[in-house]
Amino acid sequence: MTDSQLLSADPAVVATGADLFGDALTAQAVPVSSVDFRPPLEAEEEIDAALVRVLADPRRTAANAEAVDRVLAVRPQLVDVRPAAEALDLQPGTFFHAGPPVDWEHASGPLRGALIGAMVFEGLADDPDAAEQALARGAARLDPCHHHGAVGPMAGVISPSMWVFELADPQTGRRSWCSLNEGLGKVLRYGAYGTEVIDRLRWMSAVLGPLLRDAVRAHGPIDIGALIAQMLQMGDEGHNRNRSGTLMLLRALLPELVSSGAPSSDIADVVRFVSGNDHFFLNLVMPAGKLMMDAGRDIAGSTMVVAMARNGTEFGIQVSGCGDRWFTGPAQLPDGLFLGSFGPEDANPDIGDSAITETCGIGGFAMATAPAIVRFVGGDVDFALETSRRMYEITLAENPAFQLPILDFRGTATGIDVTRVLRTGILPQINTGMAGKVPGTGQVGAGLVTPPAVCFSQALKALADAAPPLT
Amino acid sequence: MTDSQLLSADPAVVATGADLFGDALTAQAVPVSSVDFRPPLEAEEEIDAALVRVLADPRRTAANAEAVDRVLAVRPQLVDVRPAAEALDLQPGTFFHAGPPVDWEHASGPLRGALIGAMVFEGLADDPDAAEQALARGAARLDPCHHHGAVGPMAGVISPSMWVFELADPQTGRRSWCSLNEGLGKVLRYGAYGTEVIDRLRWMSAVLGPLLRDAVRAHGPIDIGALIAQMLQMGDEGHNRNRSGTLMLLRALLPELVSSGAPSSDIADVVRFVSGNDHFFLNLVMPAGKLMMDAGRDIAGSTMVVAMARNGTEFGIQVSGCGDRWFTGPAQLPDGLFLGSFGPEDANPDIGDSAITETCGIGGFAMATAPAIVRFVGGDVDFALETSRRMYEITLAENPAFQLPILDFRGTATGIDVTRVLRTGILPQINTGMAGKVPGTGQVGAGLVTPPAVCFSQALKALADAAPPLT
Repeated sequence: MTDSQLLSADPAVVATGADLFGDALTAQAVPVSSVDFRPPLEAEEEIDAALVRVLADPRRTAANAEAVDRVLAVRPQLVDVRPAAEALDLQPGTFFHAGPPVDWEHASGPLRGALIGAMVFEGLADDPDAAEQALARGAARLDPCHHHGAVGPMAGVISPSMWVFELADPQTGRRSWCSLNEGLGKVLRYGAYGTEVIDRLRWMSAVLGPLLRDAVRAHGPIDIGALIAQMLQMGDEGHNRNRSGTLMLLRALLPELVSSGAPSSDIADVVRFVSGNDHFFLNLVMPAGKLMMDAGRDIAGSTMVVAMARNGTEFGIQVSGCGDRWFTGPAQLPDGLFLGSFGPEDANPDIGDSAITETCGIGGFAMATAPAIVRFVGGDVDFALETSRRMYEITLAENPAFQLPILDFRGTATGIDVTRVLRTGILPQINTGMAGKVPGTGQVGAGLVTPPAVCFSQALKALADAAPPLT
Repeated sequence: MTDSQLLSADPAVVATGADLFGDALTAQAVPVSSVDFRPPLEAEEEIDAALVRVLADPRRTAANAEAVDRVLAVRPQLVDVRPAAEALDLQPGTFFHAGPPVDWEHASGPLRGALIGAMVFEGLADDPDAAEQALARGAARLDPCHHHGAVGPMAGVISPSMWVFELADPQTGRRSWCSLNEGLGKVLRYGAYGTEVIDRLRWMSAVLGPLLRDAVRAHGPIDIGALIAQMLQMGDEGHNRNRSGTLMLLRALLPELVSSGAPSSDIADVVRFVSGNDHFFLNLVMPAGKLMMDAGRDIAGSTMVVAMARNGTEFGIQVSGCGDRWFTGPAQLPDGLFLGSFGPEDANPDIGDSAITETCGIGGFAMATAPAIVRFVGGDVDFALETSRRMYEITLAENPAFQLPILDFRGTATGIDVTRVLRTGILPQINTGMAGKVPGTGQVGAGLVTPPAVCFSQALKALADAAPPLT
């Protein structure tokens, strides 16, 4: 456009940054080209100063290298299936839950619903009303799964009579645990607590758990890491697509299930239950991720995120160089697709320990290998490809054991680096189920979400406080 | 480059077409930019004239539309598992085989090996030497699978005592059949005939077939089309990757297998056998493809390919508008990856009815959805994506039931059009296993191959001969 044209021709506007100017022009029917511009998260001097301190920490490079090495060395194996009371020394009246610590007063609807159901399931209350009153009185002790080597999807409630998968890393002997997956819809982890939910939990403890235990013990350790590697070549990303993983687990256990001597009707029921739930394997991917990321904990100077978890009220992260401290912010509402007549107004904010999948480099980070997932969580195929590529900008390593064929077999982006998140302004991409915000509802949809940026800025400040003084 | 520079500067050469000129310049260290240029296949006047005749055939558009409609309307279901003698009225001394008709004298090594093994398996010869002598004497009758609604991978030999999957299309009642998959390595269909091969075939007829029959009959029809649709979202392309398909078939049959009342050791053996062979489901994809493409046969004026099949000596195609006539050319040697110490000199030319997968739009045509396959058949991920895209240039339709997520859920390229192959010079892409050329060897590798162009030019001439005279 020449000077003379500038006054006579229609204006062409390129707007970056805040949408205010562009929106005003659009409202006046002026064509506007938006340029994607991400302002730095909390672009305050405080953050900049902390970034300088942390980037200058002479321990950082070696600490992160060690953290990555430890994470990538883990070989998660399924070694047992046991009641939580026994495996986790979980006492009656105590309930583990997803995410950072929370009390009843601050608990979200789906977490409350799951606790109500668990009280009834454990025989600590005769009905949901009595359970709710007892919980409001403080009759139960709440404790995060993550504080006990465990993880739980969505509400993540584990009670003593529930059975859990037990995973181990043969080299270090380290262990992790996760509940058994109940299926979709009206299930405890989504906050439902009706009779069908309690009956299903009873069958899971009476039949499913023992049969899986016998099969796993007869089979010997099952290499969950190898199954995850394979599922990534079979259209699963390990968080909201676990179809091939579930089938491969079933395949691994079948000969021992069939030969177990259990009643054939029980075996057929177990096979129908597992094979009818494409998400069953999620509860093995999650403790595998937990085992991997726990190996990277407590390395002074490391800026690697070792946990991302949500209790439905708050999103919390933990960082290797900051011990067991949680850095929290308000859980966000996912953007996604809804079941039936549910809509955004029915959804609870982000909830569950399942973001351990993204923490270990799969799930949302591996969506490129599972393009069909966009029909479940929203977005499109380009978004799935672009997301996986973008995650390399905020991670420390690529996992050679978990390859994404469509990205020329590149290893998954692994080990979120707090400093890279702050420097790039790119937040980790999580895909997730959505629970109804009203206790008792169950699942309402699935979608895409990110952590609140404040988790990372707070973690950065803590890392800066722990860094040696600048010389 | 200006005129004055033309004489002083180094020459810049762009070479298209035959490599002779470019190669000569390259040998003289002149930089050459090669431009990919495909001359028309058999660029003779005869072909051009035939193309004009066929393209002007007023029946063509409607005939192809009907052919496509019929193919896409098929809903292949697994309805039974039966001995071939019963299902196909196959008499002792007759053997079905892959590809177009061939006699013993012209049979390739792997077909000879499979026939030798089948003679021993059927008790028609005491040992391989006796079998070979009997076959050379003409003691057996050879007949293509395709002439009987059947298909067989590689040598594709079906004998009366072998069991076959029986598929049906509920709307038309049309049926198709395929042998049960033996696994990889030393197996009959790759031309091996040792004791382990014969013993495995005996177990398959005594245990595997009857247990699968009982499970299928107890289950009722299994929707193989739906499983194919799902496997395409799970990293399988249905020819050389059938991992998730195999797992889904197992899942479908398990409850009935477990409840069948058969000895649990037999059930466990069947589960181990099926789940230990990622290719088991190929033998259900193939008859599904056969059922689809047979529906498109015998439509006067249609230029759609309804079969591509190889007997190890010749590659043959059949075209809807040309009845049961085969258009053949010499089978090509695949380019690919070899097992162990095997190399190209060990490989037999292209063999098997499994190219029915590409004929119906999956296999090589769907490689974009199965990028991990390039580690098995060669090529790279870009090649896989590009191949699937290129196949749309030679096909009549996209199959809305078979979607490729990575191509934005585009339906598979379906219905190869003889005229488009000739006009574009693009040959259908097939991926395939490779058999050892010496009878008894078994599998030596897997790779990529195309039909000989002459199949299409011959078919075109036949279509032209059958077309109404130009007015």
